[in-house]
Amino acid sequence: MSDVKATNITWHQQRVTRDDLEKMNGHRGATVWFTGLSASGKSTIANQLAARLHTMGVRTMVLDGDNVRHGLNKNLGFSPEDREENIRRIGEVAKLFTQAGIINMVAFISPYIRDRQRAREIQGPDDFIEVHVDIPVDVAETRDPKGLYTKARQGLVKEFTGISAPYEAPENPEVYLNTATQSVDDCVESVLAVLKAKKVIANG
Amino acid sequence: MSDVKATNITWHQQRVTRDDLEKMNGHRGATVWFTGLSASGKSTIANQLAARLHTMGVRTMVLDGDNVRHGLNKNLGFSPEDREENIRRIGEVAKLFTQAGIINMVAFISPYIRDRQRAREIQGPDDFIEVHVDIPVDVAETRDPKGLYTKARQGLVKEFTGISAPYEAPENPEVYLNTATQSVDDCVESVLAVLKAKKVIANG
Repeated sequence: MSDVKATNITWHQQRVTRDDLEKMNGHRGATVWFTGLSASGKSTIANQLAARLHTMGVRTMVLDGDNVRHGLNKNLGFSPEDREENIRRIGEVAKLFTQAGIINMVAFISPYIRDRQRAREIQGPDDFIEVHVDIPVDVAETRDPKGLYTKARQGLVKEFTGISAPYEAPENPEVYLNTATQSVDDCVESVLAVLKAKKVIANG
Repeated sequence: MSDVKATNITWHQQRVTRDDLEKMNGHRGATVWFTGLSASGKSTIANQLAARLHTMGVRTMVLDGDNVRHGLNKNLGFSPEDREENIRRIGEVAKLFTQAGIINMVAFISPYIRDRQRAREIQGPDDFIEVHVDIPVDVAETRDPKGLYTKARQGLVKEFTGISAPYEAPENPEVYLNTATQSVDDCVESVLAVLKAKKVIANG
Protein backbone atom coordinates (compact mmCIF):
# COMPACT_ATOMS: atom_id res chain seq x y z
CA MET A 1 0.00 0.00 0.00
CA SER A 2 1.35 3.45 -0.91
CA ASP A 3 -0.95 5.40 1.40
CA VAL A 4 -1.98 3.82 4.66
CA LYS A 5 -1.69 6.90 6.85
CA ALA A 6 -5.17 6.33 8.25
CA THR A 7 -4.02 3.15 9.93
CA ASN A 8 -2.01 5.29 12.33
CA ILE A 9 -4.91 7.33 13.62
CA THR A 10 -6.60 6.46 16.88
CA TRP A 11 -9.75 4.45 16.26
CA HIS A 12 -11.14 5.42 19.60
CA GLN A 13 -14.55 3.98 20.33
CA GLN A 14 -16.89 6.65 21.63
CA ARG A 15 -20.10 5.01 22.75
CA VAL A 16 -23.49 6.46 23.53
CA THR A 17 -24.41 4.68 26.75
CA ARG A 18 -27.83 3.74 28.07
CA ASP A 19 -27.32 6.41 30.71
CA ASP A 20 -26.73 9.02 27.98
CA LEU A 21 -29.94 7.98 26.21
CA GLU A 22 -32.00 8.00 29.41
CA LYS A 23 -30.71 11.45 30.35
CA MET A 24 -31.72 12.76 26.93
CA ASN A 25 -35.19 11.21 27.27
CA GLY A 26 -35.78 12.29 30.86
CA HIS A 27 -36.92 8.82 31.92
CA ARG A 28 -35.54 5.33 32.24
CA GLY A 29 -35.86 2.50 29.78
CA ALA A 30 -37.88 -0.51 30.95
CA THR A 31 -39.92 -3.46 29.74
CA VAL A 32 -43.59 -3.69 30.72
CA TRP A 33 -44.48 -7.32 30.03
CA PHE A 34 -48.20 -8.08 29.65
CA THR A 35 -49.11 -11.74 30.04
CA GLY A 36 -52.59 -13.31 29.96
CA LEU A 37 -55.14 -15.26 27.97
CA SER A 38 -56.16 -14.45 24.43
CA ALA A 39 -58.76 -11.63 24.47
CA SER A 40 -57.76 -10.59 27.99
CA GLY A 41 -56.93 -7.11 26.72
CA LYS A 42 -53.11 -7.19 26.80
CA SER A 43 -52.59 -5.39 23.51
CA THR A 44 -55.34 -2.86 24.15
CA ILE A 45 -53.91 -1.90 27.55
CA ALA A 46 -50.34 -1.86 26.18
CA ASN A 47 -51.32 0.51 23.38
CA GLN A 48 -53.42 2.72 25.65
CA LEU A 49 -50.52 2.92 28.11
CA ALA A 50 -48.17 3.84 25.24
CA ALA A 51 -50.58 6.57 24.13
CA ARG A 52 -50.80 7.92 27.68
CA LEU A 53 -47.02 7.89 28.11
CA HIS A 54 -46.61 9.56 24.72
CA THR A 55 -48.69 12.54 25.89
CA MET A 56 -46.24 12.78 28.82
CA GLY A 57 -43.28 13.04 26.44
CA VAL A 58 -42.10 9.49 27.09
CA ARG A 59 -40.42 7.42 24.34
CA THR A 60 -42.39 4.20 23.85
CA MET A 61 -42.56 1.10 21.68
CA VAL A 62 -45.17 -1.67 21.64
CA LEU A 63 -43.97 -5.17 20.73
CA ASP A 64 -46.87 -7.47 19.90
CA GLY A 65 -48.10 -9.99 17.37
CA ASP A 66 -48.60 -7.29 14.74
CA ASN A 67 -44.95 -6.34 14.47
CA VAL A 68 -43.08 -9.39 15.83
CA ARG A 69 -44.94 -12.54 14.80
CA HIS A 70 -44.97 -11.52 11.13
CA GLY A 71 -41.41 -10.22 11.13
CA LEU A 72 -38.67 -11.40 13.48
CA ASN A 73 -40.55 -14.55 14.50
CA LYS A 74 -42.24 -15.46 11.24
CA ASN A 75 -40.15 -18.63 11.01
CA LEU A 76 -41.58 -19.95 14.29
CA GLY A 77 -44.71 -22.07 14.74
CA PHE A 78 -46.55 -23.18 17.86
CA SER A 79 -44.60 -26.28 18.91
CA PRO A 80 -43.27 -26.18 22.49
CA GLU A 81 -39.73 -25.41 21.21
CA ASP A 82 -40.97 -22.67 18.90
CA ARG A 83 -43.10 -21.09 21.64
CA GLU A 84 -40.06 -21.00 23.90
CA GLU A 85 -37.87 -19.50 21.16
CA ASN A 86 -40.63 -16.98 20.36
CA ILE A 87 -40.58 -15.64 23.91
CA ARG A 88 -36.78 -15.83 24.13
CA ARG A 89 -36.37 -13.60 21.07
CA ILE A 90 -39.03 -11.15 22.26
CA GLY A 91 -37.25 -10.94 25.61
CA GLU A 92 -33.94 -10.15 23.88
CA VAL A 93 -35.51 -7.47 21.67
CA ALA A 94 -37.26 -5.95 24.69
CA LYS A 95 -33.86 -5.76 26.40
CA LEU A 96 -32.41 -3.90 23.40
CA PHE A 97 -35.22 -1.35 23.61
CA THR A 98 -34.64 -0.94 27.36
CA GLN A 99 -30.96 -0.34 26.62
CA ALA A 100 -32.05 2.29 24.11
CA GLY A 101 -33.80 4.14 26.96
CA ILE A 102 -37.29 3.33 25.73
CA ILE A 103 -40.28 2.10 27.73
CA ASN A 104 -41.30 -0.93 25.72
CA MET A 105 -44.62 -2.72 26.15
CA VAL A 106 -44.60 -6.45 25.35
CA ALA A 107 -48.05 -8.00 24.76
CA PHE A 108 -47.93 -11.78 24.27
CA ILE A 109 -49.85 -14.60 25.97
CA SER A 110 -46.46 -15.97 27.14
CA PRO A 111 -48.12 -18.77 29.13
CA TYR A 112 -45.05 -20.30 30.81
CA ILE A 113 -43.50 -19.04 34.03
CA ARG A 114 -40.07 -20.29 33.01
CA ASP A 115 -40.02 -18.36 29.72
CA ARG A 116 -41.13 -15.13 31.40
CA GLN A 117 -38.59 -15.66 34.16
CA ARG A 118 -35.82 -15.88 31.55
CA ALA A 119 -37.00 -12.65 29.93
CA ARG A 120 -36.85 -11.04 33.37
CA GLU A 121 -33.42 -12.41 34.25
CA ILE A 122 -31.62 -11.06 31.19
CA GLN A 123 -32.59 -7.54 32.25
CA GLY A 124 -31.74 -5.54 35.35
CA PRO A 125 -33.87 -6.00 38.51
CA ASP A 126 -35.67 -2.66 38.01
CA ASP A 127 -36.04 -3.01 34.23
CA PHE A 128 -38.76 -5.65 34.03
CA ILE A 129 -42.36 -5.05 35.12
CA GLU A 130 -44.61 -8.06 34.78
CA VAL A 131 -48.31 -7.32 34.36
CA HIS A 132 -50.76 -10.18 34.75
CA VAL A 133 -53.82 -9.34 32.65
CA ASP A 134 -56.22 -11.75 34.28
CA ILE A 135 -59.66 -12.65 33.02
CA PRO A 136 -61.90 -15.67 33.71
CA VAL A 137 -61.75 -17.88 30.64
CA ASP A 138 -65.55 -17.78 30.29
CA VAL A 139 -65.46 -14.00 30.00
CA ALA A 140 -62.65 -14.19 27.44
CA GLU A 141 -64.76 -16.67 25.49
CA THR A 142 -67.69 -14.26 25.52
CA ARG A 143 -65.49 -11.58 23.92
CA ASP A 144 -63.60 -13.82 21.51
CA PRO A 145 -62.98 -11.01 18.96
CA LYS A 146 -61.07 -13.30 16.59
CA GLY A 147 -63.35 -16.33 17.02
CA LEU A 148 -60.39 -18.33 18.31
CA TYR A 149 -62.10 -19.75 21.41
CA THR A 150 -64.95 -21.06 19.25
CA LYS A 151 -62.44 -22.73 16.94
CA ALA A 152 -60.51 -24.10 19.91
CA ARG A 153 -63.72 -25.63 21.38
CA GLN A 154 -64.40 -27.17 17.98
CA GLY A 155 -60.88 -28.57 17.90
CA LEU A 156 -60.02 -26.51 14.83
CA VAL A 157 -57.27 -24.68 16.71
CA LYS A 158 -54.97 -27.02 18.63
CA GLU A 159 -53.14 -26.32 21.88
CA PHE A 160 -55.06 -23.13 22.59
CA THR A 161 -54.05 -21.51 25.87
CA GLY A 162 -56.79 -21.75 28.50
CA ILE A 163 -58.74 -24.40 26.55
CA SER A 164 -56.36 -27.13 25.45
CA ALA A 165 -53.01 -25.76 26.61
CA PRO A 166 -51.99 -24.55 30.08
CA TYR A 167 -51.63 -20.98 31.26
CA GLU A 168 -49.24 -20.54 34.16
CA ALA A 169 -50.28 -17.38 35.99
CA PRO A 170 -47.55 -15.20 37.50
CA GLU A 171 -47.07 -15.88 41.18
CA ASN A 172 -45.81 -12.45 42.09
CA PRO A 173 -46.31 -9.96 39.24
CA GLU A 174 -45.51 -6.28 39.70
CA VAL A 175 -49.06 -5.49 38.57
CA TYR A 176 -52.23 -7.59 38.75
CA LEU A 177 -55.19 -6.57 36.59
CA ASN A 178 -58.61 -8.18 36.23
CA THR A 179 -60.13 -7.02 32.98
CA ALA A 180 -63.52 -8.57 33.72
CA THR A 181 -64.07 -5.89 36.34
CA GLN A 182 -61.54 -3.10 35.64
CA SER A 183 -61.77 -0.54 32.84
CA VAL A 184 -58.90 0.04 30.42
CA ASP A 185 -58.24 3.43 32.02
CA ASP A 186 -58.08 1.87 35.48
CA CYS A 187 -55.62 -0.72 34.19
CA VAL A 188 -53.43 1.96 32.60
CA GLU A 189 -53.43 3.95 35.85
CA SER A 190 -52.34 0.89 37.83
CA VAL A 191 -49.32 0.35 35.58
CA LEU A 192 -48.46 4.05 35.58
CA ALA A 193 -48.40 4.03 39.38
CA VAL A 194 -45.85 1.22 39.39
CA LEU A 195 -43.71 2.96 36.75
CA LYS A 196 -43.64 5.99 39.05
CA ALA A 197 -42.98 3.94 42.20
CA LYS A 198 -40.04 2.28 40.46
CA LYS A 199 -38.82 5.68 39.24
CA VAL A 200 -38.95 4.63 35.60
CA ILE A 201 -40.82 7.88 35.02
CA ALA A 202 -40.91 10.94 37.23
CA ASN A 203 -43.57 11.18 39.89
CA GLY A 204 -45.94 14.05 39.11
CA MET B 1 -70.09 -13.94 36.42
CA SER B 2 -71.89 -11.51 38.71
CA ASP B 3 -70.03 -8.42 37.56
CA VAL B 4 -68.94 -8.24 33.93
CA LYS B 5 -69.69 -4.57 33.31
CA ALA B 6 -66.28 -3.99 31.87
CA THR B 7 -67.02 -6.28 28.96
CA ASN B 8 -69.45 -3.65 27.68
CA ILE B 9 -66.96 -0.82 27.48
CA THR B 10 -65.32 0.09 24.22
CA TRP B 11 -61.89 -1.49 24.00
CA HIS B 12 -60.75 1.07 21.50
CA GLN B 13 -57.18 0.62 20.33
CA GLN B 14 -55.32 3.91 20.46
CA ARG B 15 -51.94 3.44 18.85
CA VAL B 16 -48.82 5.58 18.97
CA THR B 17 -47.78 5.61 15.32
CA ARG B 18 -44.32 5.89 13.85
CA ASP B 19 -45.30 9.37 12.71
CA ASP B 20 -46.17 10.33 16.30
CA LEU B 21 -42.79 9.09 17.52
CA GLU B 22 -40.86 10.87 14.75
CA LYS B 23 -42.67 14.14 15.44
CA MET B 24 -41.75 13.89 19.11
CA ASN B 25 -38.11 13.19 18.23
CA GLY B 26 -37.80 15.85 15.54
CA HIS B 27 -36.19 13.44 13.07
CA ARG B 28 -37.07 10.31 11.13
CA GLY B 29 -36.24 6.75 12.05
CA ALA B 30 -33.84 4.95 9.71
CA THR B 31 -31.34 2.12 9.52
CA VAL B 32 -27.73 2.90 8.68
CA TRP B 33 -26.29 -0.47 7.68
CA PHE B 34 -22.49 -0.76 7.82
CA THR B 35 -21.05 -3.68 5.83
CA GLY B 36 -17.40 -4.57 5.30
CA LEU B 37 -14.51 -6.83 6.26
CA SER B 38 -13.51 -7.57 9.83
CA ALA B 39 -11.33 -4.71 11.15
CA SER B 40 -12.60 -2.32 8.47
CA GLY B 41 -13.89 0.03 11.16
CA LYS B 42 -17.67 -0.56 10.92
CA SER B 43 -18.32 -0.56 14.65
CA THR B 44 -15.99 2.36 15.32
CA ILE B 45 -17.67 4.54 12.69
CA ALA B 46 -21.16 3.43 13.78
CA ASN B 47 -20.44 4.38 17.39
CA GLN B 48 -18.76 7.66 16.45
CA LEU B 49 -21.76 8.52 14.26
CA ALA B 50 -24.11 7.70 17.15
CA ALA B 51 -22.09 9.94 19.46
CA ARG B 52 -22.19 12.77 16.91
CA LEU B 53 -25.94 12.38 16.39
CA HIS B 54 -26.48 12.24 20.15
CA THR B 55 -24.90 15.69 20.54
CA MET B 56 -27.46 16.88 17.96
CA GLY B 57 -30.34 15.58 20.10
CA VAL B 58 -31.01 12.60 17.85
CA ARG B 59 -32.26 9.28 19.29
CA THR B 60 -29.83 6.51 18.34
CA MET B 61 -29.12 2.83 18.86
CA VAL B 62 -26.14 0.77 17.74
CA LEU B 63 -26.79 -2.89 16.90
CA ASP B 64 -23.55 -4.85 16.70
CA GLY B 65 -21.87 -8.02 17.84
CA ASP B 66 -21.68 -6.79 21.42
CA ASN B 67 -25.42 -6.63 21.98
CA VAL B 68 -26.85 -8.96 19.30
CA ARG B 69 -24.51 -11.93 18.87
CA HIS B 70 -24.51 -12.68 22.60
CA GLY B 71 -28.23 -12.08 23.05
CA LEU B 72 -30.85 -12.44 20.33
CA ASN B 73 -28.56 -14.46 18.06
CA LYS B 74 -26.63 -16.48 20.60
CA ASN B 75 -28.23 -19.69 19.29
CA LEU B 76 -26.72 -19.15 15.82
CA GLY B 77 -23.36 -20.34 14.56
CA PHE B 78 -21.46 -19.64 11.36
CA SER B 79 -22.97 -22.17 8.95
CA PRO B 80 -24.43 -20.65 5.76
CA GLU B 81 -28.00 -21.07 7.12
CA ASP B 82 -27.10 -19.54 10.46
CA ARG B 83 -25.32 -16.60 8.82
CA GLU B 84 -28.41 -15.94 6.74
CA GLU B 85 -30.71 -16.18 9.79
CA ASN B 86 -28.31 -13.93 11.74
CA ILE B 87 -28.68 -11.15 9.19
CA ARG B 88 -32.42 -11.76 8.77
CA ARG B 89 -33.06 -11.26 12.49
CA ILE B 90 -30.83 -8.18 12.65
CA GLY B 91 -32.74 -6.73 9.69
CA GLU B 92 -36.07 -7.30 11.47
CA VAL B 93 -34.84 -5.73 14.72
CA ALA B 94 -33.44 -2.77 12.78
CA LYS B 95 -36.88 -2.32 11.22
CA LEU B 96 -38.49 -2.26 14.69
CA PHE B 97 -36.09 0.50 15.77
CA THR B 98 -36.85 2.46 12.61
CA GLN B 99 -40.55 2.12 13.39
CA ALA B 100 -39.77 3.45 16.87
CA GLY B 101 -38.41 6.62 15.24
CA ILE B 102 -34.80 5.86 16.09
CA ILE B 103 -31.74 6.14 13.88
CA ASN B 104 -30.22 2.70 14.30
CA MET B 105 -26.69 1.81 13.23
CA VAL B 106 -26.12 -1.82 12.24
CA ALA B 107 -22.48 -2.95 12.17
CA PHE B 108 -22.01 -6.49 10.90
CA ILE B 109 -19.75 -7.92 8.18
CA SER B 110 -22.95 -9.09 6.37
CA PRO B 111 -20.98 -10.42 3.39
CA TYR B 112 -23.83 -11.45 1.10
CA ILE B 113 -25.67 -9.10 -1.26
CA ARG B 114 -28.84 -11.18 -1.04
CA ASP B 115 -29.06 -10.98 2.75
CA ARG B 116 -28.49 -7.21 2.77
CA GLN B 117 -31.03 -6.81 -0.02
CA ARG B 118 -33.65 -8.58 2.11
CA ALA B 119 -32.90 -6.33 5.08
CA ARG B 120 -33.40 -3.37 2.73
CA GLU B 121 -36.62 -4.67 1.20
CA ILE B 122 -38.48 -5.13 4.48
CA GLN B 123 -38.08 -1.42 5.16
CA GLY B 124 -39.32 1.64 3.28
CA PRO B 125 -37.25 2.98 0.35
CA ASP B 126 -35.96 5.95 2.38
CA ASP B 127 -35.40 3.99 5.60
CA PHE B 128 -32.32 1.97 4.66
CA ILE B 129 -28.90 3.53 4.10
CA GLU B 130 -26.22 1.05 3.14
CA VAL B 131 -22.65 2.05 3.96
CA HIS B 132 -19.82 0.09 2.40
CA VAL B 133 -16.85 0.32 4.75
CA ASP B 134 -14.17 -0.71 2.29
CA ILE B 135 -10.61 -1.57 3.13
CA PRO B 136 -7.99 -3.58 1.23
CA VAL B 137 -7.70 -6.93 2.92
CA ASP B 138 -3.94 -6.48 3.42
CA VAL B 139 -4.57 -3.30 5.40
CA ALA B 140 -7.21 -5.03 7.49
CA GLU B 141 -4.70 -7.79 8.17
CA THR B 142 -2.17 -5.22 9.35
CA ARG B 143 -4.68 -3.91 11.88
CA ASP B 144 -6.13 -7.25 12.97
CA PRO B 145 -7.06 -6.04 16.49
CA LYS B 146 -8.51 -9.40 17.49
CA GLY B 147 -5.84 -11.53 15.81
CA LEU B 148 -8.52 -13.14 13.64
CA TYR B 149 -6.74 -12.72 10.31
CA THR B 150 -3.66 -14.43 11.73
CA LYS B 151 -5.79 -17.31 12.94
CA ALA B 152 -7.62 -17.47 9.60
CA ARG B 153 -4.28 -17.67 7.71
CA GLN B 154 -3.25 -20.45 10.06
CA GLY B 155 -6.52 -22.25 9.38
CA LEU B 156 -7.54 -21.95 13.03
CA VAL B 157 -10.62 -19.89 12.09
CA LYS B 158 -12.61 -21.43 9.24
CA GLU B 159 -14.62 -19.60 6.59
CA PHE B 160 -13.23 -16.20 7.47
CA THR B 161 -14.59 -13.43 5.26
CA GLY B 162 -11.94 -12.05 2.91
CA ILE B 163 -9.56 -14.98 3.50
CA SER B 164 -11.46 -18.23 3.15
CA ALA B 165 -15.02 -16.99 2.62
CA PRO B 166 -16.33 -14.49 0.06
CA TYR B 167 -17.25 -10.87 0.62
CA GLU B 168 -19.77 -9.52 -1.85
CA ALA B 169 -19.27 -5.76 -2.01
CA PRO B 170 -22.36 -3.55 -2.43
CA GLU B 171 -22.86 -2.54 -6.05
CA ASN B 172 -24.64 0.70 -5.34
CA PRO B 173 -24.41 1.65 -1.65
CA GLU B 174 -25.76 4.98 -0.43
CA VAL B 175 -22.32 5.70 1.08
CA TYR B 176 -18.90 4.39 0.08
CA LEU B 177 -16.04 4.73 2.55
CA ASN B 178 -12.42 3.66 2.28
CA THR B 179 -10.96 3.42 5.74
CA ALA B 180 -7.42 2.88 4.49
CA THR B 181 -7.35 6.52 3.40
CA GLN B 182 -10.24 8.29 5.22
CA SER B 183 -10.28 9.26 8.87
CA VAL B 184 -13.13 8.27 11.21
CA ASP B 185 -14.33 11.87 11.29
CA ASP B 186 -14.38 12.05 7.49
CA CYS B 187 -16.40 8.84 7.38
CA VAL B 188 -18.90 10.15 9.92
CA GLU B 189 -19.30 13.37 7.94
CA SER B 190 -20.00 11.42 4.75
CA VAL B 191 -22.83 9.48 6.41
CA LEU B 192 -24.22 12.62 8.05
CA ALA B 193 -24.40 14.33 4.65
CA VAL B 194 -26.51 11.48 3.28
CA LEU B 195 -28.80 11.49 6.35
CA LYS B 196 -29.40 15.18 5.67
CA ALA B 197 -29.86 14.71 1.92
CA LYS B 198 -32.47 12.04 2.59
CA LYS B 199 -34.12 14.29 5.18
CA VAL B 200 -33.71 11.73 7.96
CA ILE B 201 -32.31 14.61 10.02
CA ALA B 202 -32.76 18.32 9.45
CA ASN B 203 -30.23 20.12 7.28
CA GLY B 204 -28.30 22.62 9.34
